[in-house]
Amino acid sequence: MQNMRLALRERPTGLLTDEHFDRIEEELSPLADGQARVRVVYVSLDPAMRGWVSPSTDSYVPPVPLGDTMRSLGIGVVEESKTDAYKAGDWVSGFTGWTRYLDVAPGQLNVVPQTVPMEAYMGVFGLAGATAYHGLVKTGEPKAGQTLCVTGAAGSVGSLVGQIGKALGLRVIGIAGTDEKCKWLVDDLGFDAALNYKTDDLEKGLREFAPEGLDLHFENVGGKPFAAALNNMKAFGRMVFCGFISVYNGERADEYPDLTALIRKRLTFKGFVMTDHFDEYPEIFAELGKLMQAGKLKYRLDIVDGLETAPAAFGKLFDGTNKGKLVVKVSDL
Amino acid sequence: MQNMRLALRERPTGLLTDEHFDRIEEELSPLADGQARVRVVYVSLDPAMRGWVSPSTDSYVPPVPLGDTMRSLGIGVVEESKTDAYKAGDWVSGFTGWTRYLDVAPGQLNVVPQTVPMEAYMGVFGLAGATAYHGLVKTGEPKAGQTLCVTGAAGSVGSLVGQIGKALGLRVIGIAGTDEKCKWLVDDLGFDAALNYKTDDLEKGLREFAPEGLDLHFENVGGKPFAAALNNMKAFGRMVFCGFISVYNGERADEYPDLTALIRKRLTFKGFVMTDHFDEYPEIFAELGKLMQAGKLKYRLDIVDGLETAPAAFGKLFDGTNKGKLVVKVSDL
Repeated sequence: MQNMRLALRERPTGLLTDEHFDRIEEELSPLADGQARVRVVYVSLDPAMRGWVSPSTDSYVPPVPLGDTMRSLGIGVVEESKTDAYKAGDWVSGFTGWTRYLDVAPGQLNVVPQTVPMEAYMGVFGLAGATAYHGLVKTGEPKAGQTLCVTGAAGSVGSLVGQIGKALGLRVIGIAGTDEKCKWLVDDLGFDAALNYKTDDLEKGLREFAPEGLDLHFENVGGKPFAAALNNMKAFGRMVFCGFISVYNGERADEYPDLTALIRKRLTFKGFVMTDHFDEYPEIFAELGKLMQAGKLKYRLDIVDGLETAPAAFGKLFDGTNKGKLVVKVSDL
Repeated sequence: MQNMRLALRERPTGLLTDEHFDRIEEELSPLADGQARVRVVYVSLDPAMRGWVSPSTDSYVPPVPLGDTMRSLGIGVVEESKTDAYKAGDWVSGFTGWTRYLDVAPGQLNVVPQTVPMEAYMGVFGLAGATAYHGLVKTGEPKAGQTLCVTGAAGSVGSLVGQIGKALGLRVIGIAGTDEKCKWLVDDLGFDAALNYKTDDLEKGLREFAPEGLDLHFENVGGKPFAAALNNMKAFGRMVFCGFISVYNGERADEYPDLTALIRKRLTFKGFVMTDHFDEYPEIFAELGKLMQAGKLKYRLDIVDGLETAPAAFGKLFDGTNKGKLVVKVSDL
């Protein structure tokens, strides 16, 4: 039985590309007792993965060792099992990595219900949904009637942050990178307004949307959108930091943030990492399930085909060309 | 009866200097009924005053109007009173402004006990002491055994932050701008260590002092010392923002802070302004009084002579040449 996987050959200093990976074709050994063999269906491409291949020992997870299969979240189907923990046909989700097949021990991946489309586990009921809910609700502590801004608003996390915000009674403005995305946010997702950071005057747009300032801001991007939001915060406002996608590839942010606003406006900044809060997943997914059933959460996937395309597709997260949650289809369900 | 006061002529774009003020010599009218006449003894020079003369409407206090006496904290003696609220000989503290005399209505200045030297009201029992205590204890929420870093450590606020920290059982490192200041922090104030940001490798020094990272940081300065502290924070650490003296005169900070640490290390940033918390003054000064009596708080004043020297002396706050709380002696007690 043939497998293919992508192993980290060298650490990128800028963008992650094909040349940083070795494509390994290998014959799989027969399945060992106590394990199950999983055929991967989707792997998730997330901005945080850029941090996982950095040499820094300072990140929240250890770097992927050189020569190892690239770490990623994913979902697949159990093909064969020699453990009571899994049975053939189970859907299993977790850190699959960039591989077509993997053998797992009990507890290594989670069996998930087949009551929603498998794709939902890559978005709403996956890391993106948990991150959006935890960051907005637990870290941001929003109150109905408040004004929320979210950057990376058309991304997998940002689009859910805005919709959860609307469901909680907030006024929501999103910042995204194309007119098409802005239109989607307002027309399809119900955001109150959206700004295109490439063409709109963000400072002016935010001031017009929230003349008294933003109560809450959810940061996914950094750079100019962050600086503009910072300049438009209301006194005693809160800024939640989920990501700085604009600087993950080693660039400096293109706008120096005026951090004196922290003091002038008595702001609170809070950074969080969702992997600290796995214990909240059941509660969060129950809440997201209710919102989903009420028709308050929409999502879209940007599916690229074939594991070998993963490194090139990863770049879409940083040039903003992905439309919705970016996943790689590794095999047919 | 002759008065002299300094009125704001124009708003500075950079440093505040003599040329931004008109020196007004004037004859005082007889004291009105219901008022008291105060002879100012000391006025306080504080970095925040730079913000008070900026045109920004975004600051936490309205800007000093052009033509008005420069706003400042100060302390003086009641010379004559036509109100029951004050009697001749009372010490009165509050916003006196840059003037030799002022007439005040009841409630405009606070009568303070003459049980400590008058100078103490310019430091420990003034805005600096309240700011240090509120910022460290209420905003920072320190726990005994934790590691604290403070920038502007030899300044009026920073020197008290470090000493309060030591009294609470913290390990304390200070960052200051001269070897003399660093020696004073360690030898006289009991800081565990001090770094000179002009000559020491801050990153290395902080790493050596706190190999596991800083639990708590108190920021007065911004720029390089802030960036170095940010890079050396422990996961889930807290950074308290009191001042950004390095950028108050319109400069950009000389070091771009790596704000991705907010997320990687799940940090909390909190900015505060002491004028929001006047209600805490009695409680804070009671606590500071206990520490003072226990010999745990030392302070030093840098006294310059004569109100007319105030604008030039103000610059000492920004070039780091003041040694201790900077005050202007306006008249003899």
